[in-house]
Amino acid sequence: MILQAEPLNAAAFSPFGAVIGADPATAIEINEGFTTRFHRLAAADCDGKTILSIFRGRVRPLQVLMLERHPLGSQAFMPLGGHPWLTVVALSPEPAACRLFACRGDQGLQIAKGVWHHPLLVLEGAQDFLVVDRDSDGDNLEEVFFENPVSLAV
Amino acid sequence: MILQAEPLNAAAFSPFGAVIGADPATAIEINEGFTTRFHRLAAADCDGKTILSIFRGRVRPLQVLMLERHPLGSQAFMPLGGHPWLTVVALSPEPAACRLFACRGDQGLQIAKGVWHHPLLVLEGAQDFLVVDRDSDGDNLEEVFFENPVSLAV
Repeated sequence: MILQAEPLNAAAFSPFGAVIGADPATAIEINEGFTTRFHRLAAADCDGKTILSIFRGRVRPLQVLMLERHPLGSQAFMPLGGHPWLTVVALSPEPAACRLFACRGDQGLQIAKGVWHHPLLVLEGAQDFLVVDRDSDGDNLEEVFFENPVSLAV
Repeated sequence: MILQAEPLNAAAFSPFGAVIGADPATAIEINEGFTTRFHRLAAADCDGKTILSIFRGRVRPLQVLMLERHPLGSQAFMPLGGHPWLTVVALSPEPAACRLFACRGDQGLQIAKGVWHHPLLVLEGAQDFLVVDRDSDGDNLEEVFFENPVSLAV
């Protein structure tokens, strides 16, 4: 199966979570006009403690062999290198339900609690991401493996 | 008064909060080795809801005329443009207590709940930051104004 990329925007991604980008509709001027705050682009939704980490993603084959999900917390990814990247999400853990989003380098996203997704997919060498998720001290990972790989077309 | 910049590192900043950078001591290999997770660089400490926003900081005069603090929540800043920036923090709201940190473009930081600080200071044109702080529905801002400006020396 081949999965075709679609552009990332808030409406298309809404079943899976939130897009984190400088949306003009959210802009508030603060700090005497020296800062624009693009406000509340996502709300962390973590049972227990919310933590900040950096993920350094490396290039891997563009195919999906498994999906995972975190039943106890949302997980937000914000690219720090400014490079485009990819996200695979699904409302049920099967190839036919997968969607592939092409994210710009200025677009992060938050995957909602319990939504199936593939681990980090970068395109242009290693890229760091700021990650906001749950400090895991419980069973916060489920995985499903596919029989046949899904190829990704960008 | 002139305040001289000091380099940002975890030990120097520890009275005020946490540095968010890819510290090798925190590294964990995940995603079959395709991702390095620099784990738990900071824990959000917000009464109520923790939200994600983007702040777009613009260049302003390099002087401090006021400090602010947020008694109900931590506030983390991660630069998205890769450019150096500045932070002024203080344990008490007076010029003599101020410290000026020169942050690299790959260093973010979290200002601990209740720590006095100056609003965002960028150096090289506008820069966006991912901000993780409290969804404010209460009185989460205190300000103190100085009689004489503190000049910043970088």
